Amino acid sequence: MTDVKVKRPFFIVNPKAYIYGEEVLNLALVTDELAKENEIDCLFTAQLVDIPVIVERTSHLIVTAQHMDPLVPGRGMGHVLPEALKAAGVKAVVLNHAEDPYTLSNLDKTIKRAKKVELLTIVCADTVEQCKAVAQLGPDMMICEPTSLIGTGNTSDDDYIRETNQAIRSVNPDILIMQAAGVSTGDDVYRVLMGGADGTGGTSGIINASDRRAKLIEMIGALKRVQEEEIR
Amino acid sequence: MTDVKVKRPFFIVNPKAYIYGEEVLNLALVTDELAKENEIDCLFTAQLVDIPVIVERTSHLIVTAQHMDPLVPGRGMGHVLPEALKAAGVKAVVLNHAEDPYTLSNLDKTIKRAKKVELLTIVCADTVEQCKAVAQLGPDMMICEPTSLIGTGNTSDDDYIRETNQAIRSVNPDILIMQAAGVSTGDDVYRVLMGGADGTGGTSGIINASDRRAKLIEMIGALKRVQEEEIR
Amino acid sequence: MTDVKVKRPFFIVNPKAYIYGEEVLNLALVTDELAKENEIDCLFTAQLVDIPVIVERTSHLIVTAQHMDPLVPGRGMGHVLPEALKAAGVKAVVLNHAEDPYTLSNLDKTIKRAKKVELLTIVCADTVEQCKAVAQLGPDMMICEPTSLIGTGNTSDDDYIRETNQAIRSVNPDILIMQAAGVSTGDDVYRVLMGGADGTGGTSGIINASDRRAKLIEMIGALKRVQEEEIR
Amino acid sequence: MTDVKVKRPFFIVNPKAYIYGEEVLNLALVTDELAKENEIDCLFTAQLVDIPVIVERTSHLIVTAQHMDPLVPGRGMGHVLPEALKAAGVKAVVLNHAEDPYTLSNLDKTIKRAKKVELLTIVCADTVEQCKAVAQLGPDMMICEPTSLIGTGNTSDDDYIRETNQAIRSVNPDILIMQAAGVSTGDDVYRVLMGGADGTGGTSGIINASDRRAKLIEMIGALKRVQEEEIR
Repeated sequence: MTDVKVKRPFFIVNPKAYIYGEEVLNLALVTDELAKENEIDCLFTAQLVDIPVIVERTSHLIVTAQHMDPLVPGRGMGHVLPEALKAAGVKAVVLNHAEDPYTLSNLDKTIKRAKKVELLTIVCADTVEQCKAVAQLGPDMMICEPTSLIGTGNTSDDDYIRETNQAIRSVNPDILIMQAAGVSTGDDVYRVLMGGADGTGGTSGIINASDRRAKLIEMIGALKRVQEEEIR
Repeated sequence: MTDVKVKRPFFIVNPKAYIYGEEVLNLALVTDELAKENEIDCLFTAQLVDIPVIVERTSHLIVTAQHMDPLVPGRGMGHVLPEALKAAGVKAVVLNHAEDPYTLSNLDKTIKRAKKVELLTIVCADTVEQCKAVAQLGPDMMICEPTSLIGTGNTSDDDYIRETNQAIRSVNPDILIMQAAGVSTGDDVYRVLMGGADGTGGTSGIINASDRRAKLIEMIGALKRVQEEEIR
Repeated sequence: MTDVKVKRPFFIVNPKAYIYGEEVLNLALVTDELAKENEIDCLFTAQLVDIPVIVERTSHLIVTAQHMDPLVPGRGMGHVLPEALKAAGVKAVVLNHAEDPYTLSNLDKTIKRAKKVELLTIVCADTVEQCKAVAQLGPDMMICEPTSLIGTGNTSDDDYIRETNQAIRSVNPDILIMQAAGVSTGDDVYRVLMGGADGTGGTSGIINASDRRAKLIEMIGALKRVQEEEIR
Repeated sequence: MTDVKVKRPFFIVNPKAYIYGEEVLNLALVTDELAKENEIDCLFTAQLVDIPVIVERTSHLIVTAQHMDPLVPGRGMGHVLPEALKAAGVKAVVLNHAEDPYTLSNLDKTIKRAKKVELLTIVCADTVEQCKAVAQLGPDMMICEPTSLIGTGNTSDDDYIRETNQAIRSVNPDILIMQAAGVSTGDDVYRVLMGGADGTGGTSGIINASDRRAKLIEMIGALKRVQEEEIR
């Protein structure tokens, strides 16, 4: 098990393969500054070769890999070794994204390997049935995303959010749930968090913004507002 | 096209997923020192998260990724972006290893993307037919390895080496050829290079050596001997 | 939903790719005769091209495909269309065998397509966690098989059988459970059924028997004995 | 090697997963009748479960599977066994379609298995480079199809047809070449055959025709015209 505790509500910035090198580092630095300022937990993913400098130059991000394989040290040319991620300062890993689907068997193995090396697992799921199935595998967090919405800028409807939240919690109430499909404004953030999600964030909504810092301030500000309303 | 010119005979150290973090950095530092001292070209692969520090701390290695995907900047969660590798200082990429097979279509696309971002391509092949097929795709280098021998410590026989060398050169004489199956001693290095290969190297033969530096000195020494005999 | 009702305890003969043509038809005819004689339900799988003649020549078998894809009529060169199986008289389909693993997403889709065209789904799972995950997807039946035992002739131990049975029933008590790993004798059949399985059967234990009819009589006889003890 | 000799120009009807059962049998019967009447060689593919009745009820078709795996009799749940296809009367198999891509290694193995059991191999390829690579693997026939055109109803342009024909023949002049992308009229058939292809045919152009028989008469008529012009 990992000792990273994630405080809800939390945020994820997931640049996928949109940006790299200096550009992704700059986004990480801005996100780090805002996470610190707002005292929120923030996951940040990047291409594997861009992770070391982000680990080195930031202090408040939960630096996250976008893929990991279940192998153990040894053969396995081209596969992503859990121990190598851990040693590089990675704290969490996203598995089973619709753009990187896992066989059920491999997903089970990879979650177990992540626990062994103490990495947080964030597993994606699409339908209500897949959400329940993934919840049975015991990940730390889940991302619910209707595959058909990825990259469209449309958010999940309230029914989807409510049903998938309930489905996961009925199986395992300890799993932290992200609802992030199409989330790209402060209003989206507010809506999905008030709808019961533990976290949210985005990809294209942030990357394609004309001013990424302003966009993050808008979205994280909305998250902060939810946090304060919950405390009150 | 890339501006990296590889001088033959050359060497490859391919630690796959055997080692990571400080251990793979140490091996890279030793290899770098020996490459410099012996004035030979040396490819060195590593887990992606371990590549940045190797790029930073070495000067004579052709730092090589073990996998790359053909995607362009954009969506593609968990996929390895060519532009990200290039920006991180990677010079070459191994594709289609038996432990990481590519569809023919993906292999063609990935080689073309590598040329676009100016990364050397090193493509693996097994049978004579596969060697010829890969050669048609125009990689910079190839690794011929009978799949059945991987990890066994047995080297390819002379017939395999001669036939695959001829097969590749009959299609495209500009491709540099590595014969590396089971190569783990100075004698192995000498034999495959005298048998017509342009380069060689190893994985388990180096990793499992009780003294890795001594093993590299032995293998690179044999390569150096071939070089000197060829010059004379 | 399908109208095929499977009566427990039931049997499965799963020749995989061991036999084909006349040889698999002969095994189907023997199995059909024994199923009829013993008034038991029996699933029988075969290569897809061998299924039509088995459907035509037998009357008591639940003829079962070994693979199906989730596609709908249209494009999909080389994929196995659910509607085509149904129209050919197939009654059930095995999914996610360790030798033919499915992504979680594809497994969910394929189970839903099978329900739509009214085919029974039989889904394989390995670990306790995978058993629970699959059970959440709502298959009609499941096969629990520790991947490491496939083809070894060793049966699952009593702990594995008890834990996986409980895991599946805790999620969905309506799923019929097969325990079949390494089952190859009448004693094996008796043991796994008395251990709580709803069905059992085999592959190599039957195929490799010097007298397949005698082996089936032995195994189905043991199943019949359990049935009679349960009625009493 | 197979003893099936294919006479050029030839035709292929490839219904993919569009139709099945009685509907595909009816199309096979019409195609068989026209093949006989026009004395042309005609390949006809179908879902695997639909193949036996087509083999039984037709006499002039080269009945063709849409997929095959390289396995040998034994384990391999859900995989398509070459020997089973051969025993069922299948004469040819399409491999590496863009909707069913093969790894290079698997494609090489599957072509070799097909030769062993005497099935004709028809291998798909996209770019000029892929065409040359596939030609090195020694298939009997190839289908050149720019992936981007599949299902669009647009045909390959003359440059693509000329370049891929030349590429394949420069590697191995014995391979029969089909150009079929978007071919859906008699004019298309005439154009691609006069452009140097040995065969052509279609999927959606035939399946979506309001009168499939009339469409086949139109297309096969054009092929016949080319044949007669070539003889003169």
